[in-house]
Amino acid sequence: MSIQPTLSTTRFLAASRCNGQRCLSLQELVRELIDLATDHANLLGVGYARLAESGMAWVLSRLSVEMEKWPAMHSTYTLTTWVESFSRLFSSRCFELREGGEEGPVIGYIRSIWAAIDVASRRPADLSELTPLAEAASARQCPIAPHPRLRMPEESEERQYTFMATDIDCNRHVTTARYVELILDSLTLDDYDREEIGRFDITFTHEALAGQKATIETARCDDGVLITAIKAAEEEARQFCIARQAMRPRQQPVATNQNI
Amino acid sequence: MSIQPTLSTTRFLAASRCNGQRCLSLQELVRELIDLATDHANLLGVGYARLAESGMAWVLSRLSVEMEKWPAMHSTYTLTTWVESFSRLFSSRCFELREGGEEGPVIGYIRSIWAAIDVASRRPADLSELTPLAEAASARQCPIAPHPRLRMPEESEERQYTFMATDIDCNRHVTTARYVELILDSLTLDDYDREEIGRFDITFTHEALAGQKATIETARCDDGVLITAIKAAEEEARQFCIARQAMRPRQQPVATNQNI
Repeated sequence: MSIQPTLSTTRFLAASRCNGQRCLSLQELVRELIDLATDHANLLGVGYARLAESGMAWVLSRLSVEMEKWPAMHSTYTLTTWVESFSRLFSSRCFELREGGEEGPVIGYIRSIWAAIDVASRRPADLSELTPLAEAASARQCPIAPHPRLRMPEESEERQYTFMATDIDCNRHVTTARYVELILDSLTLDDYDREEIGRFDITFTHEALAGQKATIETARCDDGVLITAIKAAEEEARQFCIARQAMRPRQQPVATNQNI
Repeated sequence: MSIQPTLSTTRFLAASRCNGQRCLSLQELVRELIDLATDHANLLGVGYARLAESGMAWVLSRLSVEMEKWPAMHSTYTLTTWVESFSRLFSSRCFELREGGEEGPVIGYIRSIWAAIDVASRRPADLSELTPLAEAASARQCPIAPHPRLRMPEESEERQYTFMATDIDCNRHVTTARYVELILDSLTLDDYDREEIGRFDITFTHEALAGQKATIETARCDDGVLITAIKAAEEEARQFCIARQAMRPRQQPVATNQNI
């Protein structure tokens, strides 16, 4: 089977995938990234089914999104993915977001770091045997800074949340999109009318399950940066994920219709 | 312009649009219905832009979903919409859901009732002038029972929720999908492993905005039926929506991988 080093999708941005500012929402972008990554892994023969044969499963470990501009409602954009590099323990999969078609201007880059676990032992699994990944790993670089090391500052605000049935995905743990929503909701709709996300980094540490109570801790740093951690309420040491959200003044004013 | 009486879309069900039972989630189906309705209204020349010219806007008033079977993860299904009827005040738009392509077996029907409001006065607007709707209204019937009149029983459980930034759509009010999620979360993941939704009816009464506190009231009726109302916490009389959810024993056992 010949290797297809990249996979692209061009999409029209329907209203239902937009936020209150009429742009593609981050949680929706994240869902699309994961779907495209899944499709490409399947094409390469290193998808869910192939890993299951070896008793392994993919887990998303880290994600970094850096956007110059967010796609506007009813515009078209193109998402392209490729494998940047891989090691015995991690695969680095990147994405490029372009306005319009495949020749449009680049408006954002995303880097995702995937690990495999041995489903039985819950231990990290060895990716070396996945030779198509090696063949697919291209020289193509992703020009954004590496994922930062994230630590929760001393001073933070807290809110509580209990994970519900609709927060759970096909793997029976909380969806990445829901984590992202809970993190984004540390700011208000008014905040998002004034500011937009320039960069978003998230690190996943433990999986959360339905019915678990969570504490959402948010620290506001001086330079428009927020650090938010989602932890098990009963067991503070257990952190589900931690994220860094860097805001900047919104470039275009928000075009909304508040009258409907 | 010649009238296109129906519009169809055939989709592959990616994991990200599935629930914990590895079927198309109701909230995702609702988003797809609204997108397809929007596309068809635009094709007919009675979309958002045309109504705005007359100072009007579409509002979803009622929705009824009746499913024999839910599309499974990684399967293909086809959604077709048409205008069943319309009056001076309401347009009835229906949907048919088929397994596979346009010739596949029908597994569900949906009826949605849309009204238009005069954006300035907030009063119901007159649809009569939208002649393409009259031309599009086909003899094609939707075989499901009409939308029931929903009333909250005396006895109910309550939970609280505050609407956040990510709950808001491009029209600056709470998304239909979020209402549906809050309603579905009256049951647990375990409940959904045993039972599936046979029919779901929802009536929208007042719009909810970011920052509003809501009370979610759920009453469990004998015959596997739940009635859930979402109301303004500060102003009990103001009801955002009320839904009826009829459950039945799940037909296929849940195929999940709890090990990832």
